[in-house]
Amino acid sequence: MNKSIIVYILGCILILEAALMALPLLVAAIYRESSGFAFLATIAGCLLCGVPMIARRHENVFYAREGFVAVALGWIILSVGGAVPFFLAGAIPNFIDAFFETVSGFTTTGASILPAVEGLPHCILFWRSLTHWIGGMGVLVFVLTLMPQTGGYSMNLMKAESPGPSVSRLVPKVRSTAKILYCIYLVMTVMEVALLLIGRMPLFDTLCISFGTAGTGGFGILNDSCASYTLYQQWVITIFMILFGVNFNVYFLILMKKFVQAIKVDELRYYLGIIGGAILIITLDLVFVTGERLSIAFSQASFQVGSIITTTGFSTVDFNVWPMLSKTLLVLLMFCGACAGSTGGGIKVSRFIILGKQVSREFHRMLHPNSVKKIKMDEKPIPDEVVQSTNVYMVIYAMVFALSVILIALDNLDFTTNFTAVAATLNNIGPGLDGVGPAANFAAYSPFSKLILSVDMLAGRLELYPLFILFMPRTWKKFG
Amino acid sequence: MNKSIIVYILGCILILEAALMALPLLVAAIYRESSGFAFLATIAGCLLCGVPMIARRHENVFYAREGFVAVALGWIILSVGGAVPFFLAGAIPNFIDAFFETVSGFTTTGASILPAVEGLPHCILFWRSLTHWIGGMGVLVFVLTLMPQTGGYSMNLMKAESPGPSVSRLVPKVRSTAKILYCIYLVMTVMEVALLLIGRMPLFDTLCISFGTAGTGGFGILNDSCASYTLYQQWVITIFMILFGVNFNVYFLILMKKFVQAIKVDELRYYLGIIGGAILIITLDLVFVTGERLSIAFSQASFQVGSIITTTGFSTVDFNVWPMLSKTLLVLLMFCGACAGSTGGGIKVSRFIILGKQVSREFHRMLHPNSVKKIKMDEKPIPDEVVQSTNVYMVIYAMVFALSVILIALDNLDFTTNFTAVAATLNNIGPGLDGVGPAANFAAYSPFSKLILSVDMLAGRLELYPLFILFMPRTWKKFG
Repeated sequence: MNKSIIVYILGCILILEAALMALPLLVAAIYRESSGFAFLATIAGCLLCGVPMIARRHENVFYAREGFVAVALGWIILSVGGAVPFFLAGAIPNFIDAFFETVSGFTTTGASILPAVEGLPHCILFWRSLTHWIGGMGVLVFVLTLMPQTGGYSMNLMKAESPGPSVSRLVPKVRSTAKILYCIYLVMTVMEVALLLIGRMPLFDTLCISFGTAGTGGFGILNDSCASYTLYQQWVITIFMILFGVNFNVYFLILMKKFVQAIKVDELRYYLGIIGGAILIITLDLVFVTGERLSIAFSQASFQVGSIITTTGFSTVDFNVWPMLSKTLLVLLMFCGACAGSTGGGIKVSRFIILGKQVSREFHRMLHPNSVKKIKMDEKPIPDEVVQSTNVYMVIYAMVFALSVILIALDNLDFTTNFTAVAATLNNIGPGLDGVGPAANFAAYSPFSKLILSVDMLAGRLELYPLFILFMPRTWKKFG
Repeated sequence: MNKSIIVYILGCILILEAALMALPLLVAAIYRESSGFAFLATIAGCLLCGVPMIARRHENVFYAREGFVAVALGWIILSVGGAVPFFLAGAIPNFIDAFFETVSGFTTTGASILPAVEGLPHCILFWRSLTHWIGGMGVLVFVLTLMPQTGGYSMNLMKAESPGPSVSRLVPKVRSTAKILYCIYLVMTVMEVALLLIGRMPLFDTLCISFGTAGTGGFGILNDSCASYTLYQQWVITIFMILFGVNFNVYFLILMKKFVQAIKVDELRYYLGIIGGAILIITLDLVFVTGERLSIAFSQASFQVGSIITTTGFSTVDFNVWPMLSKTLLVLLMFCGACAGSTGGGIKVSRFIILGKQVSREFHRMLHPNSVKKIKMDEKPIPDEVVQSTNVYMVIYAMVFALSVILIALDNLDFTTNFTAVAATLNNIGPGLDGVGPAANFAAYSPFSKLILSVDMLAGRLELYPLFILFMPRTWKKFG
């Protein structure tokens, strides 16, 4: 293990965090809020720790192991640092709660322990939403674009932080790929801000909501999340949530004017198909079971489906009072998640495609024992290692899920609450059902459970491996 | 598809069912119950259909496909036939309910739609429990031992009906293997009957309870399941439940005096380890959270853990009122299930061992990309196809689970009830939590949901594949 490079990267992250906190500091200055001092203090602290860390000599030897450890530690340090302003400003008096809220922000979960947010200072709300935007595309990939070109470790970092079963480079250089992704991300965020401004949403709200949509986060700045926005504003948010859940490769193909290739991406078609199907069923369920008007049912179903499948977690209605069929569908969409290579969480549509095709191959093999069939996606065969690691991913996922449900059961809340709390955090959604439904929050859990759920959020955002590898003793052996 | 051999096997099953119904008929004669006529009529019906079916000419060509179809159709016909006496005798006036109850019996689930059983005639209760005993070891394997030696299709039948990731022959001949298994099954059942008789349980009760224990079924003959039996009787049942959840290969090794090999079976050690761990945690939870006395907590925990992990489903206490930690552990044990090659259901311990070792191999490979590591069980490497089909099994399992939870959500019962109802039927347990807890029953579900849950029970008992293959169009193509 080359510890010097990890220290260097962690130093970069702290300095980056200090730089990013200049934005809420600016907001504090504009609104003349005293909470700004909390950010000032945190910036000073980050720089005091970070600068010595990047000043030290480091070796550029960097393997997969270093990538995983850097990502895992990087996200933990980022969250600890990010929690300090909430704590210092007194917005969240308990540090574990502040840590939970910040992890929830950076991992783009949007699960909150705050019963009400409307009274909080603007700078605090701004930082809370900005964490989503930062976490959405990943911090280490961002560090990558800024760092001097140093050896071949960029792919290992990007692999460890990016979602989905396999990372594909858009262009030969990883750094250039990262830059293209950030440009798409930025432009789309600006587009959403513009469209919301046209719909007469105040600038502060448009920024916070767009950060939450782009990162598929879900922290709102109103107590009712998005329920009191106009229908136009809600539809803009719905559409952008769904857009940010699309594999960014599709946008790159569109930029390259490869339109035919773009609409032929298997994952995109399944993703849109699942969304369409779920909206249809839930709309019908609301119309026939609760007697809702068709137009209202349709827009509510669309917003909630878009919010849950992309793992954003905004809501325009308390879906906990919906009929059971709609609620069950939403719970399943929580596991489904968005496309790989998007800012969304969950298991990802492409993993389900791989698993589904694997099943169909097995049935074929059972009836025709001598046949050989390759699994294909986007008309290209999928390497066996990808299929294999998708299987392993599901097993680890199930293990983490089961263990988390057991550990938080110690708090003696009901089964639906516990089950959906883990589903909502491990998949980076935000709200679950019952005790953690859209109208409730995670405050009822003990500090121990909040830490468990924080680990789940990190594990979900980083796709399980980095955190596991961090805690494996053999990772830290000199030779092994 | 060779349909003639399938018709022949189905005919055998009907005749076998008629023969088995002679036992409840005898019980009816002893207790002079008029419900006996229901059995008489059903026997006549089974023979009328079955005899012409076996009299027809059939070809002995038999592949995997025929095996799966024969098993799937065989179990469906068996359940339809077995439901008739419940219906004719008026014990269950609705045929779908009677079908649900019979499927629950044969699949050794033990989920019931009857709110009370104590008023039912003896012959009905006896048949209800006997279905567990018949279903425990499998009917087609039984047919196999009786049929004239005809070609090489026995292994395909046994593969399709036996639980676990891979079927191993104890002795070279499949028929002989089946006979040995039946002997072990019979002797152990007799041992339990004897031990319960020593504990002064009435003979009728000992038979019914032993049938339920041996098949890991769970239908009781008292309204409170096993709560009113003495502590001695409860412990005998606890121990025999756990014994019937052990891989029968272990008993064969013991019979062959290979004691060292027997205790070295990996699955056995994990199975006992999980049981021990779960009993310990639940005992402590009951003592510290509910203030139960240690001795009572220990025996209640042991009984319930033994009952759930072996997927039997008897209960001595309403575990739905236990603290959440204990309830959550029981729900997870439902998925765990017993050993492969036992009469128990669930996913099976050996599948979890394979999945766990696969994860450890993947971590090894991530840190040491060039290494090659084989997965081993019982000191022998596991073929890649077995690992692969275990993965596929888990995917199909999750698909069936998710689809079932959606479909029964139409009844608008709560999430915990629906989730545990599917867990309890797909894993062949019996009771779940809340609306389907040990003190409740499945009567609240609509006929549609009862059919879905019946399919789940069959899919769980037959390990998913046969039912799927039955409904695949290409199974029925002449060439394909």
